Amino acid sequence: MTSTDPFRIGLLGHGTVGGAFAELLDGRADEIEARTGRRPELSGVLTRSRGDFEEILEGSDLIVEVMGGLEPAREYVLRALNAGRHVVTANKQLLAEHGEELWAAAREHGVRLRFEAAVAGVVPVIRVMQETLAGAYIERLHGIVNGTTNYILTEMARTGEPYADALAAAQRLGYAEADPTDDVTGKDAAAKMAILARLAFGTPVSLDQVIYEGIEQITSDDLAFARELGLGLKLLGTAERVDGGISVRVHPAFLYAGHPLASVSGPYNAVTIESPAITEITLSGPGAGGPQTASAVLGDVVSAMVPPAPTPEPTSALPVITDVESAFYLHLEVDDEPGVLAQVAQILGLQGVSIKSVVQEGMGEKARLVMVLHPVLESRFAAATKMIEGLDFIRATPRAIRVLEEQFVLCAFLLRCPGCERSPGHPRAARHHRAAPRRG
Amino acid sequence: MTSTDPFRIGLLGHGTVGGAFAELLDGRADEIEARTGRRPELSGVLTRSRGDFEEILEGSDLIVEVMGGLEPAREYVLRALNAGRHVVTANKQLLAEHGEELWAAAREHGVRLRFEAAVAGVVPVIRVMQETLAGAYIERLHGIVNGTTNYILTEMARTGEPYADALAAAQRLGYAEADPTDDVTGKDAAAKMAILARLAFGTPVSLDQVIYEGIEQITSDDLAFARELGLGLKLLGTAERVDGGISVRVHPAFLYAGHPLASVSGPYNAVTIESPAITEITLSGPGAGGPQTASAVLGDVVSAMVPPAPTPEPTSALPVITDVESAFYLHLEVDDEPGVLAQVAQILGLQGVSIKSVVQEGMGEKARLVMVLHPVLESRFAAATKMIEGLDFIRATPRAIRVLEEQFVLCAFLLRCPGCERSPGHPRAARHHRAAPRRG
Repeated sequence: MTSTDPFRIGLLGHGTVGGAFAELLDGRADEIEARTGRRPELSGVLTRSRGDFEEILEGSDLIVEVMGGLEPAREYVLRALNAGRHVVTANKQLLAEHGEELWAAAREHGVRLRFEAAVAGVVPVIRVMQETLAGAYIERLHGIVNGTTNYILTEMARTGEPYADALAAAQRLGYAEADPTDDVTGKDAAAKMAILARLAFGTPVSLDQVIYEGIEQITSDDLAFARELGLGLKLLGTAERVDGGISVRVHPAFLYAGHPLASVSGPYNAVTIESPAITEITLSGPGAGGPQTASAVLGDVVSAMVPPAPTPEPTSALPVITDVESAFYLHLEVDDEPGVLAQVAQILGLQGVSIKSVVQEGMGEKARLVMVLHPVLESRFAAATKMIEGLDFIRATPRAIRVLEEQFVLCAFLLRCPGCERSPGHPRAARHHRAAPRRG
Repeated sequence: MTSTDPFRIGLLGHGTVGGAFAELLDGRADEIEARTGRRPELSGVLTRSRGDFEEILEGSDLIVEVMGGLEPAREYVLRALNAGRHVVTANKQLLAEHGEELWAAAREHGVRLRFEAAVAGVVPVIRVMQETLAGAYIERLHGIVNGTTNYILTEMARTGEPYADALAAAQRLGYAEADPTDDVTGKDAAAKMAILARLAFGTPVSLDQVIYEGIEQITSDDLAFARELGLGLKLLGTAERVDGGISVRVHPAFLYAGHPLASVSGPYNAVTIESPAITEITLSGPGAGGPQTASAVLGDVVSAMVPPAPTPEPTSALPVITDVESAFYLHLEVDDEPGVLAQVAQILGLQGVSIKSVVQEGMGEKARLVMVLHPVLESRFAAATKMIEGLDFIRATPRAIRVLEEQFVLCAFLLRCPGCERSPGHPRAARHHRAAPRRG
């Protein structure tokens, strides 16, 4: 179409994502040339067994890194940036651990470092935060950013089967790896939330500042209760401003049915971004898979072929807060005898934890006591739970799961809220005002 | 922070959106200066009673047009582009009717024309399609792009009240204008779908090529049935490739509970984008309101302060198809006598329309016959309905509403689908394979 030089792409890694990328690039080259005026072409491929990094770097305008892992990925990306090449990467661990070093190199050399594929697959949350919301003050993010665990929880809820069986099924279907540790412990989600928090708040966040819990302790019993209470159970990532700092964490949490993330099921990912100016937006779609990740990588490549948007620079240095307020579901197995509820309630009261609802169910000699509690500082809840665990009528280790409270999200009314008279930007405006119209 | 010149913004229009924009700009100027290196400032405001366009144009780097309407908005935007100024507009009518002329002027003068606020409020669907998905082949879009009608339908479903009452309530709350014609007839949604189709397919689409129906004929009875059948009723915009061309339309449609748009309620907007490479992504958030629209406008302003992305140029000239396959819900009031169902079924069969499910309910002398039909060309369905209407046992005009069929969407399995063995990109892979994991 035009007589300009081709846009040369060096590919590092040729596994599932690399192979899908090469195929997609081939199929879309004509249209990309029509849009950008330059034809993209693969100038070299580095695999474990073939290719030479120096040679590929020399002959490329842009490097795509889909090798994964920390080294040599970090060294190659850094050398590419220092050599004045744009880089597109899908490597979340690399960004969560060495992001600042890499972003600084990109700024210094005036090149682009793009990483849409590193978080939430093809869901364009990185670009939306870096560009669309560049003018907005972001208050909070919630994300389902690990498709493996969301698939497992969805299957447990649907079939009633225990965790181990759902995990085995996920492995058979290719949704979980042979060694699923990074996914099921929440570590993978923690890396992604670190990246999102970095972009949302413009403050450096390292992986070791993210608190995380996985789904290994979840029982089908928990999911049965969730259904009974009309709640969904998700592995939820949260990044939010609290008391002049930020909190970044990943843990299982119940969501009431009206929450935008409650209906995100199976291997899907979704992120909800809350900001006073926009109320909230939700982005959702399939999590990482070869073709989806390759498509996100190609989108980044195309964006690097046109003139640059700014590389994110820290605009603040906020402290990372670890103790935040949460509401909890508390599940106790106790001896079925008088005074049990009173003693538990007294301990909770001493720690300032108030009870929202209780269900007590006898099962012969023992009974099950399930409570939903009002929000309280997590340290105080932990203290209360420790005391309860020591009571002599407790028959099993208490189990606690966070509940995303309705009143912890923004009121979505565009005008003054007719229910509470609060303005829509009020961060604690009650969810029930939205819950009603959202529950068609 | 820096000693460079301020970035001067001329504002045309100072109603709800213009006022909110001026306020938001003031509050965010520091952070935008930190990010972009230039401080944004209002250089002039044009209202009906004050300000001079020539003077504002002369003293601005960028023009924000939030006046609405076709003239003089068209003239001002065109003159600004021709004078080498960037333009940000929230004016969907202007783009749907004069988009090609304006985009051509922007390309000719190498300036940016941005319009995120024109469609789906703060939901960043324009940017995602123009940039993130620049490398993807888009197969189909579905959108809930009018908050007024979504609010009305949600309220009708929730309360059982008739259309007129729900409209009146929406007007009291400020979700519907005193003259709601453009919203309730589907015309507003049609303009937005024309813009989305233009971007998705790279082919010019004018407003008069969009087929649209509104919600004025919807009864609370329809919504009661929807609930009974487990469906949601939405005013659905569709833009899709069909048989070598495209179809763009807006009409009420039932959605099964697992569809990503089924849970979008109240004054919310959402768009689902389907593409073989990405399966689908969904973007959702509050529809237009003063602060939300102003935030989208500011996002566009910030993006224009950094070097440009390409202005969309047509890459193809596809025909617009008007007759497509749809599934329908058909509601008939008939005399309660033998042979009625047989005659109706025979007419449908002659036109090639097959019946998926039937509910018949006696009500004294007459009966109600409600059917859900399999997909068929709309022209054939219309012919069948016309014949049915002529039968002597028909007591009222038949009512028909489209049903978004489960098998009309992409299979979301990332690997080979375990149910149907089809590859995930197959556009008719059955929805039930996804419906299972999505229905936690």
